[in-house]
Amino acid sequence: MMPVTRWEPNARERLEEAALELFAERGFNRVTVAEIAARAGLTERTFFRHYADKREVLFGGAGGMDERLANAVAQAPDSATPLDAAVAGLAMVTALLQERRAFAARRQKILSATPELQERELIKLASWAGVIADSLRQRGVDNDAATLVAEVAITIFRVAFQRWLDGPRSGDLTAIFRAALADLSAHAALNAAPTS
Amino acid sequence: MMPVTRWEPNARERLEEAALELFAERGFNRVTVAEIAARAGLTERTFFRHYADKREVLFGGAGGMDERLANAVAQAPDSATPLDAAVAGLAMVTALLQERRAFAARRQKILSATPELQERELIKLASWAGVIADSLRQRGVDNDAATLVAEVAITIFRVAFQRWLDGPRSGDLTAIFRAALADLSAHAALNAAPTS
Repeated sequence: MMPVTRWEPNARERLEEAALELFAERGFNRVTVAEIAARAGLTERTFFRHYADKREVLFGGAGGMDERLANAVAQAPDSATPLDAAVAGLAMVTALLQERRAFAARRQKILSATPELQERELIKLASWAGVIADSLRQRGVDNDAATLVAEVAITIFRVAFQRWLDGPRSGDLTAIFRAALADLSAHAALNAAPTS
Repeated sequence: MMPVTRWEPNARERLEEAALELFAERGFNRVTVAEIAARAGLTERTFFRHYADKREVLFGGAGGMDERLANAVAQAPDSATPLDAAVAGLAMVTALLQERRAFAARRQKILSATPELQERELIKLASWAGVIADSLRQRGVDNDAATLVAEVAITIFRVAFQRWLDGPRSGDLTAIFRAALADLSAHAALNAAPTS
């Protein structure tokens, strides 16, 4: 029988579940797209309608994220400091991730076991930092400061994300992210006069 | 003639120069220790008295750095905020790096061309962050805040280091690092009351 292009109910979710199971069982590098499709009871063709490759099962959720992140930073109130604007942008991301805690936790375990995926994750975060920095420049922040503030915001995000995954399932990533910013403020006294 | 263990004048510097030349010419992965030694007019045996492997020519300068960094954080005045203490620790590192700008610039070009070395560099920075965080904990900073502040300090360092390499040769890394901290302060208003 020839494969026919047709709508498969929940195909994307079934492929994701199959991929996460297989990556956890065998290691990311030892799993093929054919195996993922078979586990999901779908064809490879269906897989490739949803994902460009097996890595995209873990990173595909970021599709369109750059633009949304740029917009969220742009839409912060004029009165927001550059760091507040960057944080407002990333709070949009944390709100989205909150819906996917179980996925994020399983994904993180696979990343921890796969250096190449960790590298890909760092590239993703560096790309977000670049998007935030560009958006800050459009708000009139100078070039060097925009890079610095964006990198610091991403660092706060990264630390908060890890706290969230290490914490109870009921944890609220956005609240943890904002608490981390407050934590930094409390331990930085950045606006105090320099002591040296 | 049998190789004889003897003192070679400036052997370490000659090996470093030979290695940097060869890495730049051929790419890090295509250079052997034998070639580095030959270029320097020395034996492989002499190479291995100075460096465990060719990668250590680029990373060996960090030997003992962890302990010095921990001490520098510990020795910050009691009145220093956690971020100030972390910055004081890294200012010890920036002062050392200042002496080696030409080396740092050549090294950075080699790293940019070699993903495996970039990964090693990230591991080094993550290790420094861990050392700083531990040192902050010993100053009484709570566990989560210590991690956050250390990661933010490393981020400021990383951005400042790049500014220094991108800037004029006469640039002062420690001054750039402290200016970046001031920049963050000016663009963060971290101690202001939250606006949301």
